[in-house]
Amino acid sequence: MIDLRSDTVTRPTPGMRRAMAEAEVGDDVFGEDPTVRRLEEETAALLGKEAALYVPSGHMSNQLAVYASTESGDEVWAHRDAHVVANEQGALAVLARVQPRVYDSPDAYPDDALLEAWIRGADDIHRARPRLVCLENTFTGRVVPRERQLRVARFTREHGMRLHLDGARLWNAAVAQGLAPEAVAEGADTVSVCFSKGLGAPVGSALAGDAETVAAARRARKLLGGGMRQAGIIAAGALYALRHHVDRLAEDHARAERLAAGAAEVPGLRAEARTNMVVLTAPRGRAHRLAGLLADEGVGSVVLGADRLRLVVHLDITDADIDDAVAGIAKAAAAL
Amino acid sequence: MIDLRSDTVTRPTPGMRRAMAEAEVGDDVFGEDPTVRRLEEETAALLGKEAALYVPSGHMSNQLAVYASTESGDEVWAHRDAHVVANEQGALAVLARVQPRVYDSPDAYPDDALLEAWIRGADDIHRARPRLVCLENTFTGRVVPRERQLRVARFTREHGMRLHLDGARLWNAAVAQGLAPEAVAEGADTVSVCFSKGLGAPVGSALAGDAETVAAARRARKLLGGGMRQAGIIAAGALYALRHHVDRLAEDHARAERLAAGAAEVPGLRAEARTNMVVLTAPRGRAHRLAGLLADEGVGSVVLGADRLRLVVHLDITDADIDDAVAGIAKAAAAL
Amino acid sequence: MIDLRSDTVTRPTPGMRRAMAEAEVGDDVFGEDPTVRRLEEETAALLGKEAALYVPSGHMSNQLAVYASTESGDEVWAHRDAHVVANEQGALAVLARVQPRVYDSPDAYPDDALLEAWIRGADDIHRARPRLVCLENTFTGRVVPRERQLRVARFTREHGMRLHLDGARLWNAAVAQGLAPEAVAEGADTVSVCFSKGLGAPVGSALAGDAETVAAARRARKLLGGGMRQAGIIAAGALYALRHHVDRLAEDHARAERLAAGAAEVPGLRAEARTNMVVLTAPRGRAHRLAGLLADEGVGSVVLGADRLRLVVHLDITDADIDDAVAGIAKAAAAL
Amino acid sequence: MIDLRSDTVTRPTPGMRRAMAEAEVGDDVFGEDPTVRRLEEETAALLGKEAALYVPSGHMSNQLAVYASTESGDEVWAHRDAHVVANEQGALAVLARVQPRVYDSPDAYPDDALLEAWIRGADDIHRARPRLVCLENTFTGRVVPRERQLRVARFTREHGMRLHLDGARLWNAAVAQGLAPEAVAEGADTVSVCFSKGLGAPVGSALAGDAETVAAARRARKLLGGGMRQAGIIAAGALYALRHHVDRLAEDHARAERLAAGAAEVPGLRAEARTNMVVLTAPRGRAHRLAGLLADEGVGSVVLGADRLRLVVHLDITDADIDDAVAGIAKAAAAL
Repeated sequence: MIDLRSDTVTRPTPGMRRAMAEAEVGDDVFGEDPTVRRLEEETAALLGKEAALYVPSGHMSNQLAVYASTESGDEVWAHRDAHVVANEQGALAVLARVQPRVYDSPDAYPDDALLEAWIRGADDIHRARPRLVCLENTFTGRVVPRERQLRVARFTREHGMRLHLDGARLWNAAVAQGLAPEAVAEGADTVSVCFSKGLGAPVGSALAGDAETVAAARRARKLLGGGMRQAGIIAAGALYALRHHVDRLAEDHARAERLAAGAAEVPGLRAEARTNMVVLTAPRGRAHRLAGLLADEGVGSVVLGADRLRLVVHLDITDADIDDAVAGIAKAAAAL
Repeated sequence: MIDLRSDTVTRPTPGMRRAMAEAEVGDDVFGEDPTVRRLEEETAALLGKEAALYVPSGHMSNQLAVYASTESGDEVWAHRDAHVVANEQGALAVLARVQPRVYDSPDAYPDDALLEAWIRGADDIHRARPRLVCLENTFTGRVVPRERQLRVARFTREHGMRLHLDGARLWNAAVAQGLAPEAVAEGADTVSVCFSKGLGAPVGSALAGDAETVAAARRARKLLGGGMRQAGIIAAGALYALRHHVDRLAEDHARAERLAAGAAEVPGLRAEARTNMVVLTAPRGRAHRLAGLLADEGVGSVVLGADRLRLVVHLDITDADIDDAVAGIAKAAAAL
Repeated sequence: MIDLRSDTVTRPTPGMRRAMAEAEVGDDVFGEDPTVRRLEEETAALLGKEAALYVPSGHMSNQLAVYASTESGDEVWAHRDAHVVANEQGALAVLARVQPRVYDSPDAYPDDALLEAWIRGADDIHRARPRLVCLENTFTGRVVPRERQLRVARFTREHGMRLHLDGARLWNAAVAQGLAPEAVAEGADTVSVCFSKGLGAPVGSALAGDAETVAAARRARKLLGGGMRQAGIIAAGALYALRHHVDRLAEDHARAERLAAGAAEVPGLRAEARTNMVVLTAPRGRAHRLAGLLADEGVGSVVLGADRLRLVVHLDITDADIDDAVAGIAKAAAAL
Repeated sequence: MIDLRSDTVTRPTPGMRRAMAEAEVGDDVFGEDPTVRRLEEETAALLGKEAALYVPSGHMSNQLAVYASTESGDEVWAHRDAHVVANEQGALAVLARVQPRVYDSPDAYPDDALLEAWIRGADDIHRARPRLVCLENTFTGRVVPRERQLRVARFTREHGMRLHLDGARLWNAAVAQGLAPEAVAEGADTVSVCFSKGLGAPVGSALAGDAETVAAARRARKLLGGGMRQAGIIAAGALYALRHHVDRLAEDHARAERLAAGAAEVPGLRAEARTNMVVLTAPRGRAHRLAGLLADEGVGSVVLGADRLRLVVHLDITDADIDDAVAGIAKAAAAL
């Protein structure tokens, strides 16, 4: 099977396995795991933030950012399809007890007019208190221009709000734009990054930000049960990924281009490459059926909506896999 | 001042004051207040439900409905401007810990395609569990056709979801359509009605539904601190309103028509009557300024958005007030 | 029936009914009800605090104090039988999301050694953050000496904690000690008082404290659905009670003394008067049975534990009722 | 340093490192990690339960058990020093929103009289709903007799409550009693076990119970952010520990006996061995000072209270370490 469902499915490389097997460890609940500490320091430095915190998942990283930045009854502004709103089981309500206010926009970021309209009358006793904006980059593979984020950051600072960036695939955005990771994180008070997606580590994400917020998140990580003992084992895999697998994302992007080009040739389909993803548009309402046919051809995908599928290129996908995937897509489409 | 901000501002009539002064009371926390019991029984009967619960506010009534119908982590579907989403301080997240999923639609109700799209893949571990649809009728004064609600009710029953109707102004919807209140409540598992808006009582709302849900809401009312002792005093005002002030809503609707007709004559403005409300559309972006000028003329209003104001007719508004209000609107508009 | 279950069962007096019928009102959600405002001002002044907030119940008053004084995950210290812990449906966990840490002590207040032991190591990542101490006075009718409260207040100030006083029956404590209410409230950051218990008003309590905390509680009152429209109706009853029914509590206390003296004569029972309550001790394990027999004799009581009952004297209890109650107790005890 | 603070500080053995390096993995969020699945199956079988769930920490395992077994506003009964109450940051209130009701008892379990007294009047609207009893075995190293647990289990079943066993050190209880793990877990609806304490694995715990509860906990694990991708890496360590390190706990117990015997010889101290722990009693109020002096001698300990310390024997502690620890204790005590 050519597993293009997600870049989370990668298996650790031999080098990464070796790094984990030899990891120096300690009890991280007591703050004594040297590998975890190193990973947190290198991550913070790369993102241009004061501190970082290693956590078991990107979901926890996002939710800790919200928990540490808000109070019960606050309002969080985000795109209606943002991961933190649409793909985290409603955890905003359960954990931080905040309510999302959602917008739609072509490039995933809110424009100035919307921000101004929404802040008006924010102190009305009938309304939740606006406290946090959550952005996401890349967003379904799409890179958001840096200036867009800086405009939002200016707004949140001005209005005493905070800005969180869900950068699960920030590494892809950095490589695609030829920017340093910290440039992509600029303006965000907190930023979440994943080691287990494009970078290929088995487990973990990190939340970076100012020292005070990260300390609050560290305490809240324990509250959620995310404090792990000799976490250096898996942190070693993440550290290896961070050191060896960022630049190579360019290869995934190139393969995604090739995959999209191939799929676009298939009659009845449209295909768009976005960093390491390809968004496939099927004839109206046929996305679920196409996904089933692709599975029959040994190509794993994820349905995004009635008409659209996602194919994700990652560390375990070779050039040959791309060729096979294109062939599979052609066969599947023919049977639609 | 001609207070058209809301129909919540009415003061009790002499008859209502007398009813309250003479109310038979008991300790309602022990379930021993006969006036409260009578109010709950008459309300349930009017709405065609098994039971009803008297509560201090419409906000509490809605929130209890959600609390009693959902579990932490559930998803509630509602219009993005629904009172329960936009005007209850984010209480959905704090009290029931549920997350709203919001739609936009011209007549405030979701259409079949949206419902079908949203229920698809609802058991995905990344998503909140859809559990409740919240409708509102009237919605910013607008009456929703009965068939629309019955379609949604069919859907929720079919998918094991529940349907709550925020009927704060259900009485207006009933009178405007010439329907019995229970016809307007049909299909809803729970329905919230207010005695302190169009009906003119000083305090209170009720939540009606099946006996089991109302019992759960009764328990949760105490949890929120809404259990009151000799509540029969204010329940007597509500009961008086329920018995004497429903039919007369037709007068408010007629006055709203007259107000809208007058306002529509004013150059630069558009006006639409909807039951007991008039929605005034000002020149682009001038709603806040118009509201200020109206206040200077002694006409109270509430801003709905950048271009729109709301004027609400109620028990304390006379024909003469309508004439004066139209004159005030003309003056204010001239100064815009 | 001689209803000695609680002082919450009183019915409004004619004077109080008149005050309610004639109350000047406005929309209190807009802050425009003059009677509510007057009640809040007089209450704050009597308690020596900056501000006060009228709420539908003592339960809500306590819970708002906690909500406004803590954050999710904090720890609240209280007696294990304190109303806020044992009689509010676990609302501490649901609303403020704080965890009680409970002590036992003969006079309801914690001693210095306990406070010092509990604060030690409070910053350990395994522990909830101690944030609030909740005291109660009177406590099952018992008056707590003023010095005890001031010692706790000194401790909480020193350690950045806060002190809430559940003064549902603070008026009784003041009258019994010959102190001004503000002397009983001294040292407390927030204090909750009831108008519907000994004072005999039909509905309502108040939360008093510094202006900032009360403002936060006012906002949270709306969150819980406790914002009422023309609340002046019932606030007028509370205001009447505050002005006319405080000093007369001495009569209730005298009657409780007489009731206890009579009951103590009954073979097999012990009786202790505490302000307006009498605690009756039955033979081992017979409290529930005794309560049943008392009900047969037309005497209402509440069981406190396996061996103990509570009888509460209030505004509607006359000297003749006391005589009848003693006779009923004698008969019931004889049948035990 | 001889680290006797906790059995959580162990470092993985060479065999365990090898098992992790070679672990077969998949994406566990998609349920595709074979090593995790094997660990969950073997754990469930050992504990005599239908299913088990691998989680990052014992804290999460306990909290998921409570979350999956209760609703907001429920009451949980536990010893006042139980880990779930006293050492999990007040998470009961934040996550499941339940309130603990705590008892004290010499052997950590509640007796029949207490259970009967607490269930009486449980449906009173003023009280939280009793729903769950949480036991802990071992409890500060102490083994609880099996019959005690079965009595509680009988009670909970009879009253529609549930029983959770925090068995973080259940393996020690089993080995000390010569019982199979499932015998120690008997009667519990859910049981939490740790791989990272006595068993010496780097990361992880498991929650076992009936299939339905474990499925609910699996969903809630994602809600908290505890879903991990190629978790097979660390699960391999846990599986290795489960297969190789249970029986050897007897060695830890023997060393704890020897340590206690040595410490008991030291003038001024008392020492008690309990499975793999030694509880050291210092002269009144000197526990903190003694811990400091022990640290100076290179012996790590944890303070339990004003007079008591805990020393925990584990996988990384040799016979020579025990001798050195006894010598260090003697020196430290001499300097007290």
